Amino acid sequence: MKRGLLITFEGIDGCGKTTQIQELISRFKDQFEYLLVREPGGTPICEQIRQILLDNANNEMFPITELLLYSASRHQLCREAILPALKKGKIVLCDRFYDSTTAYQGYGRGLDLEFIHQLNHWATDGLVPDMTFIFDISLTEREKRMRGKPKDRLEADELAFQQRVCEGFRKIAAKEPQRVHLIDGMQPVEVIAGEVWQTFQTIWREHSHANQ
Amino acid sequence: MKRGLLITFEGIDGCGKTTQIQELISRFKDQFEYLLVREPGGTPICEQIRQILLDNANNEMFPITELLLYSASRHQLCREAILPALKKGKIVLCDRFYDSTTAYQGYGRGLDLEFIHQLNHWATDGLVPDMTFIFDISLTEREKRMRGKPKDRLEADELAFQQRVCEGFRKIAAKEPQRVHLIDGMQPVEVIAGEVWQTFQTIWREHSHANQ
Repeated sequence: MKRGLLITFEGIDGCGKTTQIQELISRFKDQFEYLLVREPGGTPICEQIRQILLDNANNEMFPITELLLYSASRHQLCREAILPALKKGKIVLCDRFYDSTTAYQGYGRGLDLEFIHQLNHWATDGLVPDMTFIFDISLTEREKRMRGKPKDRLEADELAFQQRVCEGFRKIAAKEPQRVHLIDGMQPVEVIAGEVWQTFQTIWREHSHANQ
Repeated sequence: MKRGLLITFEGIDGCGKTTQIQELISRFKDQFEYLLVREPGGTPICEQIRQILLDNANNEMFPITELLLYSASRHQLCREAILPALKKGKIVLCDRFYDSTTAYQGYGRGLDLEFIHQLNHWATDGLVPDMTFIFDISLTEREKRMRGKPKDRLEADELAFQQRVCEGFRKIAAKEPQRVHLIDGMQPVEVIAGEVWQTFQTIWREHSHANQ
């Protein structure tokens, strides 16, 4: 039985995911037991897969290879870390989860969305986040925020690809408005953090109530 | 357009696949252009995936993670090596291909055969071998042949698992008798090599005739 809460943070690079996770954790003030994981990675096997995925030397990688490696890493992370933590009643915070696969490999690379949907289901044993935050920024803003940072294989992809990914995230939010909160990532950090915190408190109350 | 021939060699460890591939190649006597690949592995990305799969330290790996890693490696190998060689008219010899996934992850680990079937189709872009040889040996014979050899993560699996894999290969042969030749691997090497060579010559003649 799942007793915890799964909250995922999504969006293009530079959208503020990682900052917002830290802002949320700082508001927890020891009130909540949580586990923070990032994709790809998080366990020894996942970190080995991560190295293959992000290695700039691997520019011969085909989109389906990439899709299957992400899915392999996700399954291992779910079974080894996420599901056990949820069973213990913890709040699991994921820096990227399966919506990234839909956005990057589906909308971005143009792979079949139905197949990706099935694969996501298999890789996660049917697990669906209780709440997903997608931070929406413009590509100009992304470029500004990423400037000067070294880029891995995926971050180095061209503008048209990033544009499709960006729009893909918006489509995901439009399809599942109950689960997915699309947040304007161009707002000040504090404003966004307040919005995330308020949404979190609401679902936490509902969750506690349902588990009473 | 595919002009070459894809021939795959399957069976449990110690069944004689690798020996028989060498026997076949020795009979080619420069008459045929061929490419020999082994799974998992064969390209830089595939070799990195191979390392994760065979590493004895990775004993926490879940069956679906394993399935997805094999499929990732296979897709990369198909796109990077097998399909280009087939387009050039070469004979591609594979030391294991997707029937191993069906036998090991499907029949052996008990994963959903329909999902594996779909995944195999995706990973190979729908490619089906022109001819598959499965060498059938008893588990007692396997044990004898593997004795003293260091075992990787997969070879170290227990007897009941190996038994299911062994029977899985037989079921695959029974399902597709046109494509799959089940050969008694307990016969002398020379006898088996003769059988493989004869079968190869038959499909080569049919193939050359069809391509005229």
